[in-house]
Amino acid sequence: MRFDLVVRGGRIVTAGEEFVADIGIRDGRIEAIGCDLPSAPDEIDAADRWVLPGGIDAHCHIEEPAYQGAINPDDFATASIAAACGGTTTIVPFLNQQDGVTLEDAFHAYRSAAEARSILDFSFHVLLKDARPETISTELPAMFARGLRSVKIFMTYPGYMMTDTAMLDVMAAVAAVDGIVMVHAEIGEASRWNVDRLASAGRTGLSNFAKAYPVLIEREATHRAISLAELTGARLLVVHVSSADALEQIAWAKRRALPVLAETCPQYLLGVGDRLDSDEWETAKLICAPPIRGARDSEALWRGLAEGSLDIVSSDHCPYLFDSADGKKAHDGVADFRDVPCGLPGIETRLPLLFEGVADERISIRRFVELTATRPAMIYGLYPRKGIIAPGADADLAIWEVGQGRPLRHADLHDRNDHSPFEGKVLRGRPVTTLVGGRRVWDAGEVLVRPGGGRFITPSEGPRC
Amino acid sequence: MRFDLVVRGGRIVTAGEEFVADIGIRDGRIEAIGCDLPSAPDEIDAADRWVLPGGIDAHCHIEEPAYQGAINPDDFATASIAAACGGTTTIVPFLNQQDGVTLEDAFHAYRSAAEARSILDFSFHVLLKDARPETISTELPAMFARGLRSVKIFMTYPGYMMTDTAMLDVMAAVAAVDGIVMVHAEIGEASRWNVDRLASAGRTGLSNFAKAYPVLIEREATHRAISLAELTGARLLVVHVSSADALEQIAWAKRRALPVLAETCPQYLLGVGDRLDSDEWETAKLICAPPIRGARDSEALWRGLAEGSLDIVSSDHCPYLFDSADGKKAHDGVADFRDVPCGLPGIETRLPLLFEGVADERISIRRFVELTATRPAMIYGLYPRKGIIAPGADADLAIWEVGQGRPLRHADLHDRNDHSPFEGKVLRGRPVTTLVGGRRVWDAGEVLVRPGGGRFITPSEGPRC
Amino acid sequence: MRFDLVVRGGRIVTAGEEFVADIGIRDGRIEAIGCDLPSAPDEIDAADRWVLPGGIDAHCHIEEPAYQGAINPDDFATASIAAACGGTTTIVPFLNQQDGVTLEDAFHAYRSAAEARSILDFSFHVLLKDARPETISTELPAMFARGLRSVKIFMTYPGYMMTDTAMLDVMAAVAAVDGIVMVHAEIGEASRWNVDRLASAGRTGLSNFAKAYPVLIEREATHRAISLAELTGARLLVVHVSSADALEQIAWAKRRALPVLAETCPQYLLGVGDRLDSDEWETAKLICAPPIRGARDSEALWRGLAEGSLDIVSSDHCPYLFDSADGKKAHDGVADFRDVPCGLPGIETRLPLLFEGVADERISIRRFVELTATRPAMIYGLYPRKGIIAPGADADLAIWEVGQGRPLRHADLHDRNDHSPFEGKVLRGRPVTTLVGGRRVWDAGEVLVRPGGGRFITPSEGPRC
Amino acid sequence: MRFDLVVRGGRIVTAGEEFVADIGIRDGRIEAIGCDLPSAPDEIDAADRWVLPGGIDAHCHIEEPAYQGAINPDDFATASIAAACGGTTTIVPFLNQQDGVTLEDAFHAYRSAAEARSILDFSFHVLLKDARPETISTELPAMFARGLRSVKIFMTYPGYMMTDTAMLDVMAAVAAVDGIVMVHAEIGEASRWNVDRLASAGRTGLSNFAKAYPVLIEREATHRAISLAELTGARLLVVHVSSADALEQIAWAKRRALPVLAETCPQYLLGVGDRLDSDEWETAKLICAPPIRGARDSEALWRGLAEGSLDIVSSDHCPYLFDSADGKKAHDGVADFRDVPCGLPGIETRLPLLFEGVADERISIRRFVELTATRPAMIYGLYPRKGIIAPGADADLAIWEVGQGRPLRHADLHDRNDHSPFEGKVLRGRPVTTLVGGRRVWDAGEVLVRPGGGRFITPSEGPRC
Repeated sequence: MRFDLVVRGGRIVTAGEEFVADIGIRDGRIEAIGCDLPSAPDEIDAADRWVLPGGIDAHCHIEEPAYQGAINPDDFATASIAAACGGTTTIVPFLNQQDGVTLEDAFHAYRSAAEARSILDFSFHVLLKDARPETISTELPAMFARGLRSVKIFMTYPGYMMTDTAMLDVMAAVAAVDGIVMVHAEIGEASRWNVDRLASAGRTGLSNFAKAYPVLIEREATHRAISLAELTGARLLVVHVSSADALEQIAWAKRRALPVLAETCPQYLLGVGDRLDSDEWETAKLICAPPIRGARDSEALWRGLAEGSLDIVSSDHCPYLFDSADGKKAHDGVADFRDVPCGLPGIETRLPLLFEGVADERISIRRFVELTATRPAMIYGLYPRKGIIAPGADADLAIWEVGQGRPLRHADLHDRNDHSPFEGKVLRGRPVTTLVGGRRVWDAGEVLVRPGGGRFITPSEGPRC
Repeated sequence: MRFDLVVRGGRIVTAGEEFVADIGIRDGRIEAIGCDLPSAPDEIDAADRWVLPGGIDAHCHIEEPAYQGAINPDDFATASIAAACGGTTTIVPFLNQQDGVTLEDAFHAYRSAAEARSILDFSFHVLLKDARPETISTELPAMFARGLRSVKIFMTYPGYMMTDTAMLDVMAAVAAVDGIVMVHAEIGEASRWNVDRLASAGRTGLSNFAKAYPVLIEREATHRAISLAELTGARLLVVHVSSADALEQIAWAKRRALPVLAETCPQYLLGVGDRLDSDEWETAKLICAPPIRGARDSEALWRGLAEGSLDIVSSDHCPYLFDSADGKKAHDGVADFRDVPCGLPGIETRLPLLFEGVADERISIRRFVELTATRPAMIYGLYPRKGIIAPGADADLAIWEVGQGRPLRHADLHDRNDHSPFEGKVLRGRPVTTLVGGRRVWDAGEVLVRPGGGRFITPSEGPRC
Repeated sequence: MRFDLVVRGGRIVTAGEEFVADIGIRDGRIEAIGCDLPSAPDEIDAADRWVLPGGIDAHCHIEEPAYQGAINPDDFATASIAAACGGTTTIVPFLNQQDGVTLEDAFHAYRSAAEARSILDFSFHVLLKDARPETISTELPAMFARGLRSVKIFMTYPGYMMTDTAMLDVMAAVAAVDGIVMVHAEIGEASRWNVDRLASAGRTGLSNFAKAYPVLIEREATHRAISLAELTGARLLVVHVSSADALEQIAWAKRRALPVLAETCPQYLLGVGDRLDSDEWETAKLICAPPIRGARDSEALWRGLAEGSLDIVSSDHCPYLFDSADGKKAHDGVADFRDVPCGLPGIETRLPLLFEGVADERISIRRFVELTATRPAMIYGLYPRKGIIAPGADADLAIWEVGQGRPLRHADLHDRNDHSPFEGKVLRGRPVTTLVGGRRVWDAGEVLVRPGGGRFITPSEGPRC
Repeated sequence: MRFDLVVRGGRIVTAGEEFVADIGIRDGRIEAIGCDLPSAPDEIDAADRWVLPGGIDAHCHIEEPAYQGAINPDDFATASIAAACGGTTTIVPFLNQQDGVTLEDAFHAYRSAAEARSILDFSFHVLLKDARPETISTELPAMFARGLRSVKIFMTYPGYMMTDTAMLDVMAAVAAVDGIVMVHAEIGEASRWNVDRLASAGRTGLSNFAKAYPVLIEREATHRAISLAELTGARLLVVHVSSADALEQIAWAKRRALPVLAETCPQYLLGVGDRLDSDEWETAKLICAPPIRGARDSEALWRGLAEGSLDIVSSDHCPYLFDSADGKKAHDGVADFRDVPCGLPGIETRLPLLFEGVADERISIRRFVELTATRPAMIYGLYPRKGIIAPGADADLAIWEVGQGRPLRHADLHDRNDHSPFEGKVLRGRPVTTLVGGRRVWDAGEVLVRPGGGRFITPSEGPRC
């Protein structure tokens, strides 16, 4: 047995186990896990450190078109490097279908961009805007033929919002290939109606944002999506669940044995919803959809992570510059919540923020791995190549130092954004070394690679989730 | 104290009490309730009988336009006479707004028709098809000015189905006058989608009717209506609840202290849903919307009646001739469930069918009165003139004989329909005398009045429900 | 029709209705309810007032033996007069069986005492200490023969606490006559164990009282009593429910259609549990069992009253002098929670305190009547003689003035106690006249009778609850 | 890297992962897991087979004293060999404390017996009969000093049944060392009372067994044990949960974040409760406590296994000969359910019976491993030496063949019993090779070892569960 690299003596953590052992790597893959493996040309001393499967970020927006005139400052280079520095080793962004562009063309364009710039392996979700029957009957099958099985739809947003009929058509098509429908669950007509009502009453300050999209908007969309999926037999994954009430709907569906899965994001777990009560421009940093809720909701989400009503944690990385005309938009006197694009950065801070739940004993470190790596890999067909520490898997590993807290500082991050919404929050765990395909890409505070090198991973059948 | 009529020695039952006493009537109203009231020119011996407030049927379709070419055979004369023979003394049918007719014109037309032919006092619900802003801003206020406060909307049916936005606009308008929105809760797009799917698979036989509109269609509509009402602050009454799952949504809303009320109908309480499993033409007799469900659902509805998650029981009287080209439609070989108009007769059998729950000790006789008379009166502003046995109230009384069971026979009924779906069912209680405004209209098996004489009752504020 | 007295023009409220009418009274009973009844020798102008059935206090301790050396200062005279001044017209205290005294002897002694001193009609519950088989087989049947059907048992307190086996024996005996078992639900062994643990840790100050008997003590006892009753088929009434968790058990049982009823008391509805956090002697005023809980619990109880998981409201009147060696015990430096007898006064303030829930629109005035008069009458066999305003019923009426708030002052009360725990609380409704058997006993701030005159009411079968 | 044995090419399954790899074993431990490990003197071809961590049976009665005159026919030799043939590699039986014997003496006696005869490594639970304060203060600490942390108590059975006070004392003592209290949850007094009631009515045939111990007996005991544990802060594990209602209590506790765990056994998962409805002697084969329930209950338990409200699956192996005077007892004409000792065999069939849930897709194979090996190891302090496939762990492995079903036949089993209650049931998975400490003990249908060789494993702190 010869290895290129041995990670020695770390505390290996998987979705089901924890144990101390060595990991032998050759040709970019894990070759063996053992006691006292033979020495190799390169070695990493992981004593007193935790060795985790690299994370999979299955919800991140990269190089998508501007929305409401706002542009995400990251490209595949900066986003993938930031991800790696945060312990993530695989990304699954969206093919955002634009008017007049076929999905097939979109696939090639995004794949080329990612291969050119991403340092991480990647796959894609289809983000479907156009649910006309002809699109469903011709374009979606082309994507299925390429192995893609996850299709994201929106119940809100002009240009994206789908009618019940369109949702049913998409769900039926995805169900036929046993794929998965990802849904942004907020009801669009009621959102619009409520925003207009607030505006008519002159209530357009930023403190009205969360009031404009109250929990019932998300709860009813969640119930509706579950019901439509039930009618079609489609597997459903509700993305970015933000509230106890939406989660209650999901738990209800799971008790009914409906094939419903759910995701949340770190921003919903921090109990900071009360920061949205202000009209100050600073509030814009926390504007994302659905809105961040209160402490009762984040408590419920933590319980859902522990108990299994939530299945994965993603970032929903969608950054906008805080102080820029094509970002959150520089404000000039009075800010109007309707003008602020929804979206937060998070691809690099996802895992360290979630790790606070491990430090607080809300979830075990095994569950942390399951939520952030193993289950996303299984759900989206990347398993057992990704999301696991086992012989034959890609040597995508994150080596964590756990202990003393350090404050989060945007200056330490690697995206192209100009702020973090959670500046100053003390974090008790951090990846100190990230290996991608057996190669150090982040180590001792240094980024050790140039953009590019990421490979498209064709989703395939793994264990059913 | 002088009386025109004394009902002597009956067991008086109200929503809260039972006791034996005499009722003295003068000038059409109850003048006194007492022990050994002085004798009167006319007397009714009610010993061993139960004296109940006459029922209020708050959901019945009378003289509405044809739908899908099907015509209800009853007019205000036959419907009101049948109702009276079944112990009902007040009806609240719909002003069914037709295209090109203002609500004000509809009001006058329906009122005139009812005054000309109904033997019972009546009020109306507005049945709104057209939710354009101008209708809401001009026509609805005219109805509010006439005292009407209940507005019925549909979430399904071509020509009636409302978008979420339209529902919100109506709800907000009704909430502003503290009225009540009645909703037919089935989601229309999904219904249509599912019907088309079944049809594509050649599944159009009558046994597919219930499968075309499964419980989730009603459950999601119920959740949606509750959510939209919550956003607007409107009081909501979900009509004809048919399933345990829809009821679960309502109970959930009530626990949240949302102002949500609910109605069911006898046809959903009989546990006969399995009769819908057949393709035989006989099945058409049971086709109504939502579909009649199984025994587990009817059990849940009985519990809901007992515990309070359901508030009222109405008939949803909407008869079609079984054997007629403009009714359920005579079948010719193969019946297609899409051609059968939805609706059952029930205005005369509502109370005797529900009484079976009293005989089976599922609900008390006091609760029976509350569900069928007192609560409808309170909810729709007819109280304390109707729905109560108390001095000052109209002398609308039903005197019941309780005991030996007799089979229901359509031949004994008084509507203009050609069948009852529940022919042969043994019933253990029946009204033997009905007084309307102190006048015998049904007694000893005879109808004692001619059409007409009913008065429009303007809804007013009663106790809040 | 001739009357001795007419109560004219009041707003009559019953469990199911509200209406304005006159009440004609003759020979102590209600003779008629009508519009414009003929005049009578005596009249009461009740315009702008509410006329309610007199309340029934079905949980009050009167002239029972001292417990832990503490003596209730009231006798049947003062307790019944205080009750009447608070709008209550019937009391159902306990036959507290003492060692060496047969139940038959206890019955005669209590009945004689009550007839001699009570101004109100009364019935009794059997309070059973001794559950030996011979007691159950001989003494209980004697009580059943006298019409008593309600038997109270304790799961805690030395000398009273019953084993599971004893509870089962009593329940089976009561079930055989279709009676009702009332249970004080706190588990005794765990209570004792926990008190000892606190004492070992030196935690005996009054602030430890509520911690000594946490909610789980009541919750488990409630679940246990429900389970044992289920095994025997006995009807169960859980007295003085204090917590959301115990109520959850009861609601669960009701959903299962088990014959379980429940009572709460005003002291648990006021959200004042935090006043128990102090070691000051003042805390002793609020010490009763189970302990008064926090605001979340009282909110849940109000919801239970509105929704029906709670059935009746009683006082659990059990006063001890605050400043006396044979009462709560004068304190001398350090107060020990184990020395303070459990019990609060409340027979006169029960209805006005509960009325605050009507003023706050938590419950309707009809539900108020149901909870405090009609349902207790039905449950304990006093209906339809008591708990109702109907011809033939006893003319036991409370005429209420509703509107301006006035602070509760013990100086205005009529018991023999030296304080009220709720001194100063502003109350918005009050009985201004109380009629017992058609006779004014409390009017315009004056007590108008002398002790005695109350009659024993033999429980009989009323409507089943 | 040199190995004594390589298990080559199997599908390795752990609590969190599945992957194909080789396992290299040296000196009884797993040395490495890798791709194409170097060859070794001994190899096992596991292609197309599943390689699982050997099971841990944490609830089995071995060499305990007779109860009610009934003797378990197995000793440590036959029980451990049977276990190994069924894929189990570690057992955790009970130290059954007998009157007059100290726990320390019991420990030595059981340990000696197990070392002499068991072929499997073992640990022990303390089975406590005597909860006198002096036992708790002196004998239990001796066991804690030996590393034992799990203490089993009974709420029923003469000689074993504990009062609430005794339970609290034991729980507090165990909580102080952060151990775990295992509880047999059936309430004893009510059981006795109900058995006597049935007997008085002459209902002693075997069909009365399940009626004698209805679900409420288990449900209330479960709620009680949870409540008492809550008072003391003890971790609780409810053994052999049999019913949906008991499980509901456990799920409730988990939602409250109480440290409550639960176990079930295969016999409760098979939906065969209706076989208990017969008075035939054959019924005796299924008599165990709590009784086996109906299909609704087993469905609920499967859901609990999938969702996490149940944590482990054990056998509760407690066999009695069917046809023997010192076993279930030979019957002579009329069988009396009171004479049949409770207990079923199951140590060899536990895993194959549970595997049916994998075959039916009720649980994943990963969850199967978690329930039967990983979690028991974590809960009882055997992890990471047992319950895991990882370098450094003992080489305790079960190699399974999955596919064609074969009927269970007692003739193929290895215990000393005379029957299996589930004779003939078709099973779709079976261990074909079992390794204990790297040594084949069961292979190709042959037992390859002689009794003895098992080691006592001292429980230690593993990951917290």
